[in-house]
Amino acid sequence: MLSLTAVLVAVVCVLIVWIFKPADRSLQKKEREPEARPWVDEDLKDSTDHLHQVQEDEDEWPESEEDVEHIPFSHTRYPEKEMAKRSQEFYELLNKRRSVRFISNEQVPMEVINNVIKAAGTAPSGAHTEPWTFVVVKDPDTKHKIREIIEKEEEINYMKRMGQRWVTDLKKLRTNWVKEYLDTAPVLILIFKQVHGFTASGKKKVHYYNEISVSIACGILLAALQNAGLVTVTTTPLNCGPPLRMLLGRPPHEKLLMLLPVGYPSKEATVPDLKRKALDQIMVTV
Amino acid sequence: MLSLTAVLVAVVCVLIVWIFKPADRSLQKKEREPEARPWVDEDLKDSTDHLHQVQEDEDEWPESEEDVEHIPFSHTRYPEKEMAKRSQEFYELLNKRRSVRFISNEQVPMEVINNVIKAAGTAPSGAHTEPWTFVVVKDPDTKHKIREIIEKEEEINYMKRMGQRWVTDLKKLRTNWVKEYLDTAPVLILIFKQVHGFTASGKKKVHYYNEISVSIACGILLAALQNAGLVTVTTTPLNCGPPLRMLLGRPPHEKLLMLLPVGYPSKEATVPDLKRKALDQIMVTV
Repeated sequence: MLSLTAVLVAVVCVLIVWIFKPADRSLQKKEREPEARPWVDEDLKDSTDHLHQVQEDEDEWPESEEDVEHIPFSHTRYPEKEMAKRSQEFYELLNKRRSVRFISNEQVPMEVINNVIKAAGTAPSGAHTEPWTFVVVKDPDTKHKIREIIEKEEEINYMKRMGQRWVTDLKKLRTNWVKEYLDTAPVLILIFKQVHGFTASGKKKVHYYNEISVSIACGILLAALQNAGLVTVTTTPLNCGPPLRMLLGRPPHEKLLMLLPVGYPSKEATVPDLKRKALDQIMVTV
Repeated sequence: MLSLTAVLVAVVCVLIVWIFKPADRSLQKKEREPEARPWVDEDLKDSTDHLHQVQEDEDEWPESEEDVEHIPFSHTRYPEKEMAKRSQEFYELLNKRRSVRFISNEQVPMEVINNVIKAAGTAPSGAHTEPWTFVVVKDPDTKHKIREIIEKEEEINYMKRMGQRWVTDLKKLRTNWVKEYLDTAPVLILIFKQVHGFTASGKKKVHYYNEISVSIACGILLAALQNAGLVTVTTTPLNCGPPLRMLLGRPPHEKLLMLLPVGYPSKEATVPDLKRKALDQIMVTV
């Protein structure tokens, strides 16, 4: 009788602790997030999907290129002198690119926007999944709604940080979260990465390295814009992905990676007088 | 006496479960990783650093541009017709780019390599941190050591998967992990992202969005290579980052993002007959 009671008590205790210990942990986690912003978690997931998927999601398999016919590669080769000249001129063109935050409201030709996005779409991607969607926003009302969503989040970001770090002139800080270019730029390009796709049978198809692939496409897009004589500034609106996704009616497997306001510079446009690192600071030869 | 024993047993059980439950979990985790590859964890960390840093590392603050002088932005504007022509030609040039796995051992002019890396270095980066290191490997011995590291890991990746999914012709699979181009290509460019930098006083300085920034730089690098008439294939050798980093003597805050073998295509080079998505499949207008 004595030992039976002890065993019973022991079993009950083990069960109670087993059940409540993890529950207790998840409670602690919740307490750290003061505000109810259900999509924040979802947004943060964005950054962790590519390498971990490769490791964990072993049910999936990248599309094999083995079934695709291989054809001879046709190549344009330039004489060495011309290679040197072309590469020098390309560098000089791109070295004039600056992030411009003062964008005129003048319209830009849509043919050019189509061409720069077609250029971005030539980027390589993991297993040729082409995991990108470029949403081109020209409608003034939608642009303004985008501005409202981003400025609200930016204000939260700045105010939170300010509270922790220093108390300073609010007006000075305000210039950091007021994004006038979201209204004035004739075109906003929102670049979404598709974190997975679908097979013919509707099953999830992993998009390996989707963030890297879409960022490469954005690099080509920036080069194409500069080549066409348009300006932009590379922005990654923190925590704004899901509300912007919902505003634009994009599906849940598409996550916002970048937002580029595109246009001509306004007449009074200025840029910070920053320098770039020299070649020997970024390149090592072995 | 009865209740005292019961209480004692209860306390002991609670303690035992409390102590061993987490231990048990970490054991389970270890069992899933059969081999001792201490750097695998480190490598996987690479993918999670950028957005989480912004949220979690609130001790740090991106470099402010407020102290930098602002200067007028000088801009080259083309007539609309020329914009259309330039953007069309740029698209056509890049649309000829293909991932080429058959690279000749012919040397390429280093002046061109310098120029394409200078072009990549014009990419924008979070808070202008320029968090990239381009390691250009020409030395045949180092190239061969790189090949050995990568082929060993690739073999593990393929064999592991094969065991789980199917048993098939080993020779056919072998073409997937044998990377001859790592020996034959005259130049390998290994692109490292600096996940943090250092302040003047030696403190860690967060590099916000370093992976996105460096991937953008790689996009520009790919465009620059295509513009110069050189070919490459975009590779992201899984789990090879740390051993390659150590081989090349790069510091721990630099993580391998990409490896590009660069050269001219070999005469018998083929490419899979893949098509790209049409504009209306990648672009949405609002």
